[in-house]
Amino acid sequence: MGTRGIQTAVVGVGGYAGMELSRLLLHHPRLKGVAPVFAGRPEAAGLSAGSPMALTAIHPRLMDNNGSAGLVVEPFSWELFASRGVEVLFLATPHEQSREWVPEALERGIRVIDLSGAWRLNDSSNRTVYKFEDEGSGAAVAVQAKSVYGMPELHRDEIREAALIANPGCYATSIILALKPLIEKGWVNLERGIVCDSKSGVSGAGKAPTAKTHFMYAADNLSAYGVFGHRHTGELLEQLHLAPEQIIFTPHLLPIPRGILSTIYVGFNQSMRPEQIQSCFDDFYKDSPMVRVFRDGELPQIQYSAYTNFCDIGFQLSKDGKRCVIVSCLDNLLKGAAGQAVQNLNLMYGWNEAEGLV
Amino acid sequence: MGTRGIQTAVVGVGGYAGMELSRLLLHHPRLKGVAPVFAGRPEAAGLSAGSPMALTAIHPRLMDNNGSAGLVVEPFSWELFASRGVEVLFLATPHEQSREWVPEALERGIRVIDLSGAWRLNDSSNRTVYKFEDEGSGAAVAVQAKSVYGMPELHRDEIREAALIANPGCYATSIILALKPLIEKGWVNLERGIVCDSKSGVSGAGKAPTAKTHFMYAADNLSAYGVFGHRHTGELLEQLHLAPEQIIFTPHLLPIPRGILSTIYVGFNQSMRPEQIQSCFDDFYKDSPMVRVFRDGELPQIQYSAYTNFCDIGFQLSKDGKRCVIVSCLDNLLKGAAGQAVQNLNLMYGWNEAEGLV
Amino acid sequence: MGTRGIQTAVVGVGGYAGMELSRLLLHHPRLKGVAPVFAGRPEAAGLSAGSPMALTAIHPRLMDNNGSAGLVVEPFSWELFASRGVEVLFLATPHEQSREWVPEALERGIRVIDLSGAWRLNDSSNRTVYKFEDEGSGAAVAVQAKSVYGMPELHRDEIREAALIANPGCYATSIILALKPLIEKGWVNLERGIVCDSKSGVSGAGKAPTAKTHFMYAADNLSAYGVFGHRHTGELLEQLHLAPEQIIFTPHLLPIPRGILSTIYVGFNQSMRPEQIQSCFDDFYKDSPMVRVFRDGELPQIQYSAYTNFCDIGFQLSKDGKRCVIVSCLDNLLKGAAGQAVQNLNLMYGWNEAEGLV
Amino acid sequence: MGTRGIQTAVVGVGGYAGMELSRLLLHHPRLKGVAPVFAGRPEAAGLSAGSPMALTAIHPRLMDNNGSAGLVVEPFSWELFASRGVEVLFLATPHEQSREWVPEALERGIRVIDLSGAWRLNDSSNRTVYKFEDEGSGAAVAVQAKSVYGMPELHRDEIREAALIANPGCYATSIILALKPLIEKGWVNLERGIVCDSKSGVSGAGKAPTAKTHFMYAADNLSAYGVFGHRHTGELLEQLHLAPEQIIFTPHLLPIPRGILSTIYVGFNQSMRPEQIQSCFDDFYKDSPMVRVFRDGELPQIQYSAYTNFCDIGFQLSKDGKRCVIVSCLDNLLKGAAGQAVQNLNLMYGWNEAEGLV
Repeated sequence: MGTRGIQTAVVGVGGYAGMELSRLLLHHPRLKGVAPVFAGRPEAAGLSAGSPMALTAIHPRLMDNNGSAGLVVEPFSWELFASRGVEVLFLATPHEQSREWVPEALERGIRVIDLSGAWRLNDSSNRTVYKFEDEGSGAAVAVQAKSVYGMPELHRDEIREAALIANPGCYATSIILALKPLIEKGWVNLERGIVCDSKSGVSGAGKAPTAKTHFMYAADNLSAYGVFGHRHTGELLEQLHLAPEQIIFTPHLLPIPRGILSTIYVGFNQSMRPEQIQSCFDDFYKDSPMVRVFRDGELPQIQYSAYTNFCDIGFQLSKDGKRCVIVSCLDNLLKGAAGQAVQNLNLMYGWNEAEGLV
Repeated sequence: MGTRGIQTAVVGVGGYAGMELSRLLLHHPRLKGVAPVFAGRPEAAGLSAGSPMALTAIHPRLMDNNGSAGLVVEPFSWELFASRGVEVLFLATPHEQSREWVPEALERGIRVIDLSGAWRLNDSSNRTVYKFEDEGSGAAVAVQAKSVYGMPELHRDEIREAALIANPGCYATSIILALKPLIEKGWVNLERGIVCDSKSGVSGAGKAPTAKTHFMYAADNLSAYGVFGHRHTGELLEQLHLAPEQIIFTPHLLPIPRGILSTIYVGFNQSMRPEQIQSCFDDFYKDSPMVRVFRDGELPQIQYSAYTNFCDIGFQLSKDGKRCVIVSCLDNLLKGAAGQAVQNLNLMYGWNEAEGLV
Repeated sequence: MGTRGIQTAVVGVGGYAGMELSRLLLHHPRLKGVAPVFAGRPEAAGLSAGSPMALTAIHPRLMDNNGSAGLVVEPFSWELFASRGVEVLFLATPHEQSREWVPEALERGIRVIDLSGAWRLNDSSNRTVYKFEDEGSGAAVAVQAKSVYGMPELHRDEIREAALIANPGCYATSIILALKPLIEKGWVNLERGIVCDSKSGVSGAGKAPTAKTHFMYAADNLSAYGVFGHRHTGELLEQLHLAPEQIIFTPHLLPIPRGILSTIYVGFNQSMRPEQIQSCFDDFYKDSPMVRVFRDGELPQIQYSAYTNFCDIGFQLSKDGKRCVIVSCLDNLLKGAAGQAVQNLNLMYGWNEAEGLV
Repeated sequence: MGTRGIQTAVVGVGGYAGMELSRLLLHHPRLKGVAPVFAGRPEAAGLSAGSPMALTAIHPRLMDNNGSAGLVVEPFSWELFASRGVEVLFLATPHEQSREWVPEALERGIRVIDLSGAWRLNDSSNRTVYKFEDEGSGAAVAVQAKSVYGMPELHRDEIREAALIANPGCYATSIILALKPLIEKGWVNLERGIVCDSKSGVSGAGKAPTAKTHFMYAADNLSAYGVFGHRHTGELLEQLHLAPEQIIFTPHLLPIPRGILSTIYVGFNQSMRPEQIQSCFDDFYKDSPMVRVFRDGELPQIQYSAYTNFCDIGFQLSKDGKRCVIVSCLDNLLKGAAGQAVQNLNLMYGWNEAEGLV
């Protein structure tokens, strides 16, 4: 129990992932009595005057009668973290911001769990949507080399030792976990092409009020976006070792607050039996407490995993055994963001992977 | 049929009321072949360059294959209206803007149907929320004197001749239509106070993306706002001849796109029988095609009147006959805005009040 | 105008398609003054006593002040139709019921527009989900031979003369209209397989209260169902001339009242340019007023076509021009059911195809 | 810590309150290693064959990888409870059922927390909606005399010792907690009458599929029901010591899964200052961890307390200090049902009132 008392910090508390992360850390059994340092970008609304804000003024949901009342969000500064002895820094910030801050954090000996897309891709040619100014610089290459893709089910051992965790994208998590076991077996016909039709709740679009996050835009509606060009595509290619023409990923905006469902279509090189697919998933995830494999053609639904840190996976095979529909669901703010970040924290400190998450 | 061919103009096409108004006018049987002139404030998004925009680029819903394709929205100018011979001007603009434009329109001999709150109140002391710079000036007083509160069920005759229609507020319409018949009879105990608990869909909050119109704020939620201070209160006081302490009006934001339900609580000076209340409503609205009076304790629901121009009214009396709950529903964009505006247009030109609305 | 005064009848008024159909027919400009005969299955709720029910008691939305008040729904009987001189019968009934009634209607010289799946498939081997008792009987074969698949964009000429219209399924309409132009050109790589990922609002699941239509099941949720086995699949195979292994169709239940969006993935035999795809759709639908083809990579959304009779189609081509995502939207109760039925009625009587629908 | 290992049982697991209760008990820190006995009415779906069902087959959300997999729901029987040594029985059953089972449970020495309305009212004349066969019998009177109304904020001491807890109604909880402090002070003008306008999510209507729980009925809608006749009214009268004519309570069905917001209108006997009201609430709830009192005119919203066990209370005073709007929110399945039940369990066993709830 010498591991109690780890001092964490959360930057970017104002967003939805930041809120969930704050909630999880405040209730984490291993962090009792050590509230995170909460910080925001100095230019963030309410912090621009340089003075701290009450956490519960930003997120009334976090109110309770015994603790959160006194918590404040302070403007980001390295001095703040140094004076509090921060060991682990969670960045729930835009990727440009994470890109800037991570190198210094590592230099200062602070471990980082970055929820943005800043350090997820080893091959920058997969970064088709956003580019960074420091791309290709020696410093950036060195930091990227230290970065571990924070998906415990694939990289558990590296996460334990990592100085920098690139926490995966929400869509990417739902797709990679559904495909990895089958692709690894060599069963999937990659020539035929994999189709990933994903649907996400509006919290995935961020907290900034925009035309597309307006209630009147999203409600009673469904819309596809980012067709052939979503920025999570690079993660799919790297983690699944695919070429761009082998996979199509189309995200859609669902009229619900949270949750992702990905419907994934694969063809097989030969006719498969359901038991083979079932065993493949069961075996792959037998030691992964946060993945629930469904059986007997039962398929996950968004509401089963919403408000949990589980990723649910089910499948249905065609009669001829040559085509398969895989359905994968998760909560985009938990397993798709803050929950997976805490899962990584647990691994980094040798705790039970699911602690504080169930 | 000499009345065909009236040239209308709509300013503020970009908002939700503007969209519904455009749709109604484009399909109005009396206006066939004479599309409205569509205009926006010159500084409006997309019009700032001074060039027209396709109407269907702003509102894809208005697309059809035989007409709307060529329609454009142009920057507001008096020259535009003069060159097209505009007779009637609909303003679906912020009230400050309406306040500025109406005097000149009247001078130019253009009849105006103003959907904003600029000219609804005869007594400016009822304007507790917004004040205008020209308040009390001779010119403003003269314009206000010409203004008719555009609720056909109360002011049908004046509307027919009006140069300026102040189209009522959405909440106000739902409450005034529910209370007027009973108050006029002298039955309501005003000392006891009337309670109006109203709930509106998000389109009532306007198209600008704000923290409160974000899907994540409104969805799965309900919130009260403007308690003891909503700007529609003045309309209630004037149209119902009430003092401020005789009525409380609390609006709430519902997680639905459109529709208002007002639950209204009144006490009676003496014990009433259901038949008396029923007859009172039936008689009052017997010549009003856009009000549907429910019977036998059946109560309206939002979805009955959504996407229609009806205001639905039902009631339930307590056993002792001394207290009454009245429920009133309407579509805030139709009977609460654009539909009522067209109802007023119909009256101004001697057409059937419900034309183009059912 | 000698065509005015056609007497229609609607059976199955109680469901959602029946309600929309009733609304459309009551407001159809060619049917003014001739309200449909409304009938329900004698065992339907409320009709079991054999006495008529007020139409507005079943559907309060259909109330207005000038006509619907007196309308009643009567128990189904051939005598009823004969006594009223019914020429056209709309069946919004379960397919078993349609299967039973259509032969007699045709014998009696009544033209039928059947909204069920009873007579849509010429090859009963495509009927994988439901089978009928009379399957293969001489009488059934004879009726089927008269049946025309009621999709005006594909079978306009046959519809004009038809005695029996098999009104298409809602999902099938959205998919067939999106694929037909491209498949007909021979461009689509059928070996690779077509993926149709469709999402529908809850009205598509019918009015019966079931575990799956419970608000708590559908709200804040998304679920796939009928994977590799939805009954609309047969329509896709027949109308697009495909073999079962060439297409996958997966429906999902969306947490919205109405609207379908289908995301359709095709590969091409050779690299295509966007202009070719655009022209293909534009040409195919140039005389079809109820299909709106989007351009420049703009994609339809459910709310553009909800509450209209349009089917909206847009597409996005991959950079290499070999893969294409097509998005198709419609209102499942209108273009997917009642609206398309009225479109067929219009053709059967030589009226403008879009009459009463825009 | 000798209190660990208490054996609980939950009957009525299949409903929404039963599901939340199961989830809370499975994760309760004081009940680790002692899963509840789960039971259903023998005639409940799936149990009628007499054989147990997997808990996760009924509620897939309750799945996890380390425990719930083996849990089963068994048909109700006293032998089952005896053989397992059940000390506390939670009844999430219809009130008729609770009415029947509670007397025997008490005889057998099992403490009961009953979530139904069976034993909430001491004066059966307040039971205006439902009546029980045994009403007034000596046995029923004796059981009722033992019943404690399970609202910890009002009856904490009695709850600690109770053999039978009548867990309060969801609406009643939101209203009583908002009114009790002010009424107790004698400030409220009861002559004027109190208006309680409440709105609840659909889970409050139960899991049975009915016309009113159909997605198409509830979505995009709002409807009032039970006007002047809701069964929770009796609880208001008893707990607040009011006469029927002193309070009106109108519930509405909100298009959201869960959460209640009550807007409550009171008049005061004299002019009050905001600080007085604030202090009144603060003082009353200073030792109540599950009530959050808002300040400075901030009002609660449904989403602040959804998925928590808090009841949130805020208020706004009129300028003249004589009228007040109080807004009260809670999650109807937690503080309004299962959460409050666990809060009562905590008190009964001397644990921290909020344990397992935050």
